[in-house]
Amino acid sequence: MTWASIDLNADLGEGFGRWRLTDDEELLSVVTSANVACGFHAGDAATMRRVCARAAERGVRIGAQVSYRDLAGFGRRAMDVPAAELAAEVAYQIGALEVFARAAGAAVAYVKPHGALYNRVVHDEEQAGAVVEGVLLADAGLPVLGLPGSRFLEAAAEAGLPVVTEAFADRAYTDEGTLVPRGTDGAVVTAADTVVERSIGIASSGTAVAHSGRTIAVRARSLCLHGDTPGAVGLARRVRSRLEAAGVRVEAFA
Amino acid sequence: MTWASIDLNADLGEGFGRWRLTDDEELLSVVTSANVACGFHAGDAATMRRVCARAAERGVRIGAQVSYRDLAGFGRRAMDVPAAELAAEVAYQIGALEVFARAAGAAVAYVKPHGALYNRVVHDEEQAGAVVEGVLLADAGLPVLGLPGSRFLEAAAEAGLPVVTEAFADRAYTDEGTLVPRGTDGAVVTAADTVVERSIGIASSGTAVAHSGRTIAVRARSLCLHGDTPGAVGLARRVRSRLEAAGVRVEAFA
Amino acid sequence: MTWASIDLNADLGEGFGRWRLTDDEELLSVVTSANVACGFHAGDAATMRRVCARAAERGVRIGAQVSYRDLAGFGRRAMDVPAAELAAEVAYQIGALEVFARAAGAAVAYVKPHGALYNRVVHDEEQAGAVVEGVLLADAGLPVLGLPGSRFLEAAAEAGLPVVTEAFADRAYTDEGTLVPRGTDGAVVTAADTVVERSIGIASSGTAVAHSGRTIAVRARSLCLHGDTPGAVGLARRVRSRLEAAGVRVEAFA
Amino acid sequence: MTWASIDLNADLGEGFGRWRLTDDEELLSVVTSANVACGFHAGDAATMRRVCARAAERGVRIGAQVSYRDLAGFGRRAMDVPAAELAAEVAYQIGALEVFARAAGAAVAYVKPHGALYNRVVHDEEQAGAVVEGVLLADAGLPVLGLPGSRFLEAAAEAGLPVVTEAFADRAYTDEGTLVPRGTDGAVVTAADTVVERSIGIASSGTAVAHSGRTIAVRARSLCLHGDTPGAVGLARRVRSRLEAAGVRVEAFA
Repeated sequence: MTWASIDLNADLGEGFGRWRLTDDEELLSVVTSANVACGFHAGDAATMRRVCARAAERGVRIGAQVSYRDLAGFGRRAMDVPAAELAAEVAYQIGALEVFARAAGAAVAYVKPHGALYNRVVHDEEQAGAVVEGVLLADAGLPVLGLPGSRFLEAAAEAGLPVVTEAFADRAYTDEGTLVPRGTDGAVVTAADTVVERSIGIASSGTAVAHSGRTIAVRARSLCLHGDTPGAVGLARRVRSRLEAAGVRVEAFA
Repeated sequence: MTWASIDLNADLGEGFGRWRLTDDEELLSVVTSANVACGFHAGDAATMRRVCARAAERGVRIGAQVSYRDLAGFGRRAMDVPAAELAAEVAYQIGALEVFARAAGAAVAYVKPHGALYNRVVHDEEQAGAVVEGVLLADAGLPVLGLPGSRFLEAAAEAGLPVVTEAFADRAYTDEGTLVPRGTDGAVVTAADTVVERSIGIASSGTAVAHSGRTIAVRARSLCLHGDTPGAVGLARRVRSRLEAAGVRVEAFA
Repeated sequence: MTWASIDLNADLGEGFGRWRLTDDEELLSVVTSANVACGFHAGDAATMRRVCARAAERGVRIGAQVSYRDLAGFGRRAMDVPAAELAAEVAYQIGALEVFARAAGAAVAYVKPHGALYNRVVHDEEQAGAVVEGVLLADAGLPVLGLPGSRFLEAAAEAGLPVVTEAFADRAYTDEGTLVPRGTDGAVVTAADTVVERSIGIASSGTAVAHSGRTIAVRARSLCLHGDTPGAVGLARRVRSRLEAAGVRVEAFA
Repeated sequence: MTWASIDLNADLGEGFGRWRLTDDEELLSVVTSANVACGFHAGDAATMRRVCARAAERGVRIGAQVSYRDLAGFGRRAMDVPAAELAAEVAYQIGALEVFARAAGAAVAYVKPHGALYNRVVHDEEQAGAVVEGVLLADAGLPVLGLPGSRFLEAAAEAGLPVVTEAFADRAYTDEGTLVPRGTDGAVVTAADTVVERSIGIASSGTAVAHSGRTIAVRARSLCLHGDTPGAVGLARRVRSRLEAAGVRVEAFA
């Protein structure tokens, strides 16, 4: 068995002002790590405070979900932000969240890029480096969460940051272990049973069936769950209980 | 002599993206405390980083200049922000600045409200309390800078925060020691020589000539200088050199 | 019978980017006038375009719901915006909406202030005048929707703008015909049956039972319905069908 | 002589709230077409109103300078905005400006993309189409200003929009008539005399010396001048007077 335990992470606090998106209370009862929006794609200050307080009460780890500055596009529009600006914007978001984590008796425990920035730093050398620089500005020992093999995790490791790999049970993989691009037929796994089975496979044996039908290695310390679609929280809950029933310890990464 | 020494503070980093307002480099050669804009009325992340780095290099103290969320109005539009939201927004701004102060080897050393928020918390019980709550969320020992007799400083003192009073050499005072409202004839002192004289009077003897002609006590640990109008930096520089010539130690508050 | 007919208006398009608030499709099947958010408190451009297209298809009148610039506070934070800035901001919003109304083969047919601005211009002379100036900049013949007796409607009438009065079946009234302030016990009528009865009373006889128990005159050409709480659309639908059953013609104001 | 006359265009109103960038008053005495910022990269509503009023008084043509939604990056960050959102955002900006142009007794006479959007639609098929769709939403007969040979002008022409080509006297050209990318040595022409000479060459004979030294055809109906750097307005003024001295009629495009 590859992993004795698995971390479960999900995006939380993705409302803004009057708007709500995620059922934060429910998600906090399922996940071990909460990716908290920091105000650039979502996440007003009062929501950040509340989510940090509730996460700390439940012992859920708090992570900074950093994004491009893009409320109108929910951080899903890739942007050519110059490296110096991007690094500063990342640090700004982490610092803002730290206040609320600390006020709740916790701390920001990791950083995960959001949306278009997440996808961009898989391959974009300059932006990957800029996000790493932003993390270093905030805290030179802060773990980062990302895709195995991504330029982001490589740059983070080179800079001495702890690196946490994550997998997606609801996304199809290529034989090389990268994600099949959205838009491709079968790129997103929608059958709940399949998502549950894949979660167990990744967590217990470090493998998954790729898009081609071959069994491949998918080594991840954390599984990313989603909470922003109807039924998503129910599925997340089921994944967790089935993992536990299968003997996998669900716990935050060390 | 009331004070052996005086602090000089001014607003810095009040640009946003492509726009610049203050001559930060010049101001940093004059003041001992820099009120750094935190992104809500001005101050993009890259500017915050640069100003913190330069302030730390020069040994100028870094303060968080917190504001209403109002880029279009430069924080000069009073807003009825509910207390819980305002407290969180204040904490958010302080946290964001902390990252850049820390990365520069310094720390956020005080908090000063900006513009319409500054004026509002002179008398508004609820908002004064909210700003104090925001400061406490960030750091229970952080000094606040404000107007003597303001509801803000009272609430801060009640909450155990260190309180630093400031005075304005270019504003007329009433016999009671409050500011003559802008718009009133003579409310703003424009003659450079008079501003210099008043600065020396406040710093060396703790007194000023009020609007009525009477000499009143104006006790302040810090003098607020302005840098956003033509000639302002030159006047600030003159105030400093004349203070030093008059035997006043210009240094950051303890 | 005071009115042979009544207009029903509601706020639509109050999402922003990824966030949705109102069930626009359902509301468009109930109301005769749609107050479309114009981007300052809610309402991204794509949503504005879609709502205008659907409203035009259904023959629902399109109104510009203008607001303070305040996405984080959903336009519910009163702001001291200088008159010249407020007038220009109002005109800006109307112009932006006009493009989408016109592209849908319709036109902006009226203007209604939103949230804190709505409440402020009931009594604030300067801001009421500024909103009227903004409307005049956009179109000197554009009707405005507001509270009877408000400073806003008075200023609009003085400026020659057509004035449309509205009433709230779910709000308690004083004997003088003004709204009992929110927060006062009984200020909001929550019982669905009572809301329906009051709607019929206002529409058919121009009267309502005030908070004191007295029957007073409530003359309004339009009834404001709400769509942003659970069950709200169902209640709106019931109000409409009961009005029609009572012989009231439900139609947009002339 | 290729052209009997030339249009001069420049960006105006590129401040935001408290910040100013361009000397609008001076530029309006030089140019015949004003590209007015519409609020997405710069340009608050009050500034838009003022610039439109002054342009109309001076008989300067008003154009909508549309941008990505990016105040922090001044519209200089390329963004992957989905086509439907981009089209709506372009239409929104044109509509907002129309109100102020109309209130000044004028009209929006053309559309020109700004910054990163300008560069992107030179070659990006989807975004070029989206901007054209946005213009069509606003007004199916509105001319667009852009680079000869750009995908944007091609798409506009295919859609039946009048197309106006522009040239840059301060940018180096390739033999194929495209701009030498910024960052390349010699890409920007800084010598004032050379800029003046090139302006006359483009306007009077439709030619310019390319980066290679060859003389190429540069056919343009409008010359783009800049006003946001020190000395820029002075140079613009000199270009105009030298064009007139050379017998070129400086006038807005028909």
